[in-house]
Amino acid sequence: MIDIQALYKISYGLYIVSSGDRSRGNGFISNTVFQVTAEPPRFAVCCSKDNYTAEFIIRYQVFSVSVLAQSASTEIFGKFGYRSGRSFDKMAGTSVKYGKTGVPIVLDESIAYFECKVIQTLDVGTHLLFIGELLEAESTDDSKEPLTYSYYRQVKKGVAPKNAPTYIDKSKLEVKSGSGLKKFKCAVCGYIYDESAEPVRFADLADDWVCPVCGSEKSEFIEIP
Amino acid sequence: MIDIQALYKISYGLYIVSSGDRSRGNGFISNTVFQVTAEPPRFAVCCSKDNYTAEFIIRYQVFSVSVLAQSASTEIFGKFGYRSGRSFDKMAGTSVKYGKTGVPIVLDESIAYFECKVIQTLDVGTHLLFIGELLEAESTDDSKEPLTYSYYRQVKKGVAPKNAPTYIDKSKLEVKSGSGLKKFKCAVCGYIYDESAEPVRFADLADDWVCPVCGSEKSEFIEIP
Repeated sequence: MIDIQALYKISYGLYIVSSGDRSRGNGFISNTVFQVTAEPPRFAVCCSKDNYTAEFIIRYQVFSVSVLAQSASTEIFGKFGYRSGRSFDKMAGTSVKYGKTGVPIVLDESIAYFECKVIQTLDVGTHLLFIGELLEAESTDDSKEPLTYSYYRQVKKGVAPKNAPTYIDKSKLEVKSGSGLKKFKCAVCGYIYDESAEPVRFADLADDWVCPVCGSEKSEFIEIP
Repeated sequence: MIDIQALYKISYGLYIVSSGDRSRGNGFISNTVFQVTAEPPRFAVCCSKDNYTAEFIIRYQVFSVSVLAQSASTEIFGKFGYRSGRSFDKMAGTSVKYGKTGVPIVLDESIAYFECKVIQTLDVGTHLLFIGELLEAESTDDSKEPLTYSYYRQVKKGVAPKNAPTYIDKSKLEVKSGSGLKKFKCAVCGYIYDESAEPVRFADLADDWVCPVCGSEKSEFIEIP
């Protein structure tokens, strides 16, 4: 049996992984950024093949990682996590610096960044695992904690988008108990509040609770089967 | 420049990764366990080539992951994190169950476990990245939080052992400021308290502070160059 509660006990941070150059770039919210060797420092990032940023990393063979602050706003998740850069330029209106390879590095709401050159790519199924050698690293704000996925889920009420490695399609997995638990969908952005993955029932959320993605009020949510 | 403070802002959990069978098994403390695909659920674990458990994973092509509880004792880090199974049987005296593949799964101080079959192995330099398909997952204790590496470093004062992907050899990297910071070594187990990687000076630690690895008193520490 596969108990999805067990999967939620793996700890992750949250990052914006970007690629491209000065003329065109794209980035997405990732929870899978890991150091894999110390000598020399190398990092793994996991990216859905459907993800527009994957095309940039394959073409440019570089990526940057911006470590999001715990205080990161819901807007940055709306921009980098739930919308595709195929339809708009994510770097427009974003505070960006360019690394030594020319890769865009998102500075908004982040506390540190890395710049890596891809040295290996592994096809792991629906996703690609890019292994990058560290070129540059800088801590830009030591006063803030890094955002963890656990904090994002528990405090900010965020859920993984469909392209995330940790996305859970609950219809395919066993659930220990689910009786009476409901789902509510934001009519504005499509975000789903799933009581089986949350500590509190939708009805018990504070009246001033808003959609973690687009900021819509609770009244915009409709119950779905 | 590579600012090591930036590397500390990546979030990790802490796990015991084990392999073997009913007659012989071994496990080690890992901070690099992450989900890489959701359909089907696949996981990556990173393991030093020098690590005895790597030999078991290569031979048996299975591994288990036990998610450590935040309350995990220093003894379990001494046993699974800082000593090699080449010299003793780590599974002796450990509460273990065996998965459907026969792989040992450590239950001590853990809150969930996974069992995975290896489907790919990537050589990333000093380490191997094993990609495993999930066979079983169970959450065994919902009352406790998972241990994070950040908590381990900040609250439990732990450091990464030499085989960890996140081990920092400070002599090779630039440090923003290090003037006057000292190192103290536990004369019993060799653990090093390095002030440049800790929030407080050694002298300012509480009198009842003990070595996070072997439990020795502060008086057992000697200053090293």
